[in-house]
Amino acid sequence: MPLRPLPDVAITGAFWNTYKELVAEKVLPYQWSALNDQVAGIPPSHAVENLRIAAGEVEGEFAGMVFQDSDVAKWIEATAYSLRERPDPVLEERADELIALLGRVQQPDGYLNSFYIVTEPVENRWNNLRDCHELYCAGHLIEAGVAYAAATGKRRLLDIVVKYADLIDRTFGRGPGQRRGYPGHPEIELALVRLADATGEQRYLDLAHYFLTERGTAPHYFDLEEEARASLAQTPRSFPVINPADVDREHLNYGLGYAFQQAHEPFLEQSSAVGHAVRATYLYAAAADVALRTGDERLRAAVDRLWRDVVDGKLYLTAGIGSQVPGESFTDPYDLPNEGMYCETCASVGLVFWAARMGRVAPQGEYGDVIERAIYNGTISGLGLDGESYFYINPQQYTASMAGRQLGWDISRPDNRRQNWFTCSCCPMNLARMISSIDQYVYQADDRRLVVDQYIGSTTSLRIGGVDVEVAQESGLPWAGDVRLRLTPSSPAEFAVWLRVPQWADEPTLSVNGAVVEGGEPVDGYRVVTRTWSEGDVVELRLGMPVRTVRASTRVSENQGKVALQRGPVVYCLEECDNGGDLAAIALDTTRPVTAEFRSDLLGGVVALRAEGWRETEPQDAPLYGFDPPRSEPAQVTAIPYYSWANRAAGEMRVWIRDEGAGR
Amino acid sequence: MPLRPLPDVAITGAFWNTYKELVAEKVLPYQWSALNDQVAGIPPSHAVENLRIAAGEVEGEFAGMVFQDSDVAKWIEATAYSLRERPDPVLEERADELIALLGRVQQPDGYLNSFYIVTEPVENRWNNLRDCHELYCAGHLIEAGVAYAAATGKRRLLDIVVKYADLIDRTFGRGPGQRRGYPGHPEIELALVRLADATGEQRYLDLAHYFLTERGTAPHYFDLEEEARASLAQTPRSFPVINPADVDREHLNYGLGYAFQQAHEPFLEQSSAVGHAVRATYLYAAAADVALRTGDERLRAAVDRLWRDVVDGKLYLTAGIGSQVPGESFTDPYDLPNEGMYCETCASVGLVFWAARMGRVAPQGEYGDVIERAIYNGTISGLGLDGESYFYINPQQYTASMAGRQLGWDISRPDNRRQNWFTCSCCPMNLARMISSIDQYVYQADDRRLVVDQYIGSTTSLRIGGVDVEVAQESGLPWAGDVRLRLTPSSPAEFAVWLRVPQWADEPTLSVNGAVVEGGEPVDGYRVVTRTWSEGDVVELRLGMPVRTVRASTRVSENQGKVALQRGPVVYCLEECDNGGDLAAIALDTTRPVTAEFRSDLLGGVVALRAEGWRETEPQDAPLYGFDPPRSEPAQVTAIPYYSWANRAAGEMRVWIRDEGAGR
Repeated sequence: MPLRPLPDVAITGAFWNTYKELVAEKVLPYQWSALNDQVAGIPPSHAVENLRIAAGEVEGEFAGMVFQDSDVAKWIEATAYSLRERPDPVLEERADELIALLGRVQQPDGYLNSFYIVTEPVENRWNNLRDCHELYCAGHLIEAGVAYAAATGKRRLLDIVVKYADLIDRTFGRGPGQRRGYPGHPEIELALVRLADATGEQRYLDLAHYFLTERGTAPHYFDLEEEARASLAQTPRSFPVINPADVDREHLNYGLGYAFQQAHEPFLEQSSAVGHAVRATYLYAAAADVALRTGDERLRAAVDRLWRDVVDGKLYLTAGIGSQVPGESFTDPYDLPNEGMYCETCASVGLVFWAARMGRVAPQGEYGDVIERAIYNGTISGLGLDGESYFYINPQQYTASMAGRQLGWDISRPDNRRQNWFTCSCCPMNLARMISSIDQYVYQADDRRLVVDQYIGSTTSLRIGGVDVEVAQESGLPWAGDVRLRLTPSSPAEFAVWLRVPQWADEPTLSVNGAVVEGGEPVDGYRVVTRTWSEGDVVELRLGMPVRTVRASTRVSENQGKVALQRGPVVYCLEECDNGGDLAAIALDTTRPVTAEFRSDLLGGVVALRAEGWRETEPQDAPLYGFDPPRSEPAQVTAIPYYSWANRAAGEMRVWIRDEGAGR
Repeated sequence: MPLRPLPDVAITGAFWNTYKELVAEKVLPYQWSALNDQVAGIPPSHAVENLRIAAGEVEGEFAGMVFQDSDVAKWIEATAYSLRERPDPVLEERADELIALLGRVQQPDGYLNSFYIVTEPVENRWNNLRDCHELYCAGHLIEAGVAYAAATGKRRLLDIVVKYADLIDRTFGRGPGQRRGYPGHPEIELALVRLADATGEQRYLDLAHYFLTERGTAPHYFDLEEEARASLAQTPRSFPVINPADVDREHLNYGLGYAFQQAHEPFLEQSSAVGHAVRATYLYAAAADVALRTGDERLRAAVDRLWRDVVDGKLYLTAGIGSQVPGESFTDPYDLPNEGMYCETCASVGLVFWAARMGRVAPQGEYGDVIERAIYNGTISGLGLDGESYFYINPQQYTASMAGRQLGWDISRPDNRRQNWFTCSCCPMNLARMISSIDQYVYQADDRRLVVDQYIGSTTSLRIGGVDVEVAQESGLPWAGDVRLRLTPSSPAEFAVWLRVPQWADEPTLSVNGAVVEGGEPVDGYRVVTRTWSEGDVVELRLGMPVRTVRASTRVSENQGKVALQRGPVVYCLEECDNGGDLAAIALDTTRPVTAEFRSDLLGGVVALRAEGWRETEPQDAPLYGFDPPRSEPAQVTAIPYYSWANRAAGEMRVWIRDEGAGR
């Protein structure tokens, strides 16, 4: 019996409540204004305007990315999650209005895509799955419809997307007259699983299974559809309008070919994570979902291989993925550059989606570890503390002398200032929906196991062991390692409580009602307590949280001789505003203790670290190269949580610091 | 009175004789075959074929770069230098045939450019100086004409280029009816100085002065000519044919704008080396030349500022320049990435040209130091020991895990295998002409000073102090620091001998006829002996040549905590075939001595270094990130000269190695 996340978890802990409040009160209103082109000085979204044009309510031309609809869908989805705990009549009314607008855009046959409705004749639909994101946008609409119905009980959007999904189900598949296509950007697969779960309709799951298993097979659908486009009566508007990456086949998809879309070989044969990292995580998440529900062992084997490939060699310490900007994509194992990488916010968000689904078969602490690494580091680093500024790229290091570099035509530059919006603005809403649904990652359960994956203060209730149980969790994370669960079954009942022991925990101690549970090492990353639980039973987990010096495998060339600081799940960095410029000249003395102090005045309240080290010095007129031994002076080093960088002053930043042990 | 290089220096030393022989016997014949499309498996040059088409002797279309003529010109120039010491009837006949062909291509008015002659109507000439390299190609033809006449006494090519230069002189300038243009790629400026010197015609020098001082002034000529192109009867064939970098003004020239061409501001106001590094060195070399001959103090001040900017912050240890691939260009000071850089072979060759010209006013050891750094490192690294394989990009490090990265559309990848030719094959001939003219960098003189800049075994003669003097130099460089000059004046005469003391020299000892000359510190980088010299006088300079551990300024972020090894002028590197893979896992113990041994069996005979260090180790199943202290084992480290890497097996390479002092 698969595990399921609990549907009714209320977040009570300070850290995530602060973020959820920020999303409810600032992020979502700001994003709504941005989508409605009401924010000055940012790239116009035009997303809502596109829908109005598509509905025939205003005159105008489509503008923005071909997948601009998805921004609206993701905003509705994020709002749905937020409304569940934080009712907000204004936000709900705005969501309802957008849903009504989507209803007016929807065509009689169910089709719903503003780009195609506005710019292309009907017969051009579905003719460029590789590039034009129709199925991707549909997926986001479906996720929004499912989430909005669950949160508000309002079925309008769900009805819309069911009608659209039915059109898609008729259009695609291996049946006679159907198109043998699949999306260039995965997303609809996992959305269809959610729709199947919400409606009980097996055919959506079957369609997701079809999309997954058809992917990358020969003859290649993207080749066939390209040939078919030549016979269209009206040449489709090309997208991207100018993409020099595609001037010839050699350069197609930034030189990645169909690996960019994880469609270079049949999905069932894949074992190396390649291509666009966001696409990858959505695809792999769906594969885990579909494997679980269909029992397709080949699908599960493929996604297990891909998981190992990412986690063992392609994952940044901050849970960033995507080692290169071209194609926003994976590269070879152990290629983890600190500055030239991509580490898109969306990719780390997608990693959370994927990891959560990996763990539904059986608890494995590793999945929760990765989720934890992501939610406290490389995802929320994408959001400024003001709620209105974003990183698309999350560098592991920013060096001032690099600022003058010109990058390639299609290559984005890591920045040390967050932006208020993007021409392609996928990340802001993606992060909003992750934060507003953070409750989904805390618990899983079946009818005999309560699995606690994340230590986030919260309350919930569930039916387990034949009884109803109330659960109240208190947690000091991410700043303190004390976790306390109070269980209140309606009557005494036997079931198991699984408690993930994070990989960073030092000397974890488990106790029940004050009595330490001896039990040795965690199994599969969990401590398990199976007993008959009674009202008021308390489980406590004390996770030692020393400051850790993290070292990368010797195969990661950039980080040799360096360490990163981590405390609990939080990865730290040095910022110029605390430590002066030329951060590369700083080395840590890793033989000296590092002190940790919670500072409520700093960055909204964080534990900052103080370490001892050295700073290399040189005379003002030092030559570029010299033969003299290095000179250094003792230096106090201040480190702050990585996620909170770039909230004070724009300067240098560095996660990996030279380790000089006790000095040279 | 300016210094002049000596025209008749014969190389006798083993190191450079080997290279000159390689050029004469392998490189030039191979390149001739390549230019004539007679080598299988390489990108066709079409350079000679273009000339035949332009001469109307065969049918066909122009192919190759718009500046393909320059490859032929540089081959003739390199051959000219080679013929002087190594007569070769076959090479000379081939050169004569190419010159005859150029004569048949030349138009009645003197114009000579196969691209325009073949592809464009006459009225389109000179209409895209920014991109189309007519003046650049003319410059290379002029250099070839001057060099070939000097080497062989044959004036045919000189006559051709004089006629062409006269056309250019009539076409460009500030006079009525003249075009106020200047080249997008500098080169003709320094060529015109050589032509002025060779012919005694002041007008060529004036034209060079005009090109330099007009450069970057307002209104901007590149803007004006772009507007003018709109009114041409026939739209010019665009070049490059597809250059996505130029789709809009923001991306013009890889985002560098006119800084790419060092034309972003008036040349006389420039103080920061920007843009395409090869263009820069040719331009700055010309500025030094023209300043010397015209006495234009503003020109000299500008080029002095640019020199400091490059040498103090933009120069790699190997004498590479150009920190980024986009625009093959300079970036900000201290931005010296080891892997993503360009360090084009041509740019280091151009740096030699520039540095030599900087020193003509007064001896300054720094110029000779830079030439030495270039000729023993980042130039000849561009040529395989087989004489038929080339590097365009000279990385400071090559890491295996990077091999899977996709780069941008217009971004070249550093490689660890030399190629046999390039679509844009400027570097092979440029390096050939530097090697075959290496004699020009050994000495400078005026009528009272003999300046010895490079310690290269050689013989020469000159008139100095009113007498004729024979000079015979013996030198152990680059492997040993013993230098011996025997002077044979026709009768005793007083003059000064200046001997550069290289920056790397340890406890240099100067002696004359066996008696040590006490004299303290070098002045301007030279020891000077002024005396009355008699037949058979011997000057000896003993340059201590310990292995140096080089450290970069604390402002060079990539090299903090690292050292490079240098012995004499030779910069060393580690290669995988000597040290195993994952070179980043190796650290040096810089407290232990490094041993140097000449190995005649290795890489054509080199001094290899053996150092002590450690290699970090980890279990086979080590996680990507861990909290354990590092484990390492002692390692013997072998270093070879940087220039000689990539001649055995394709693998990792690294110049900058972690310095762990005596360990952690």
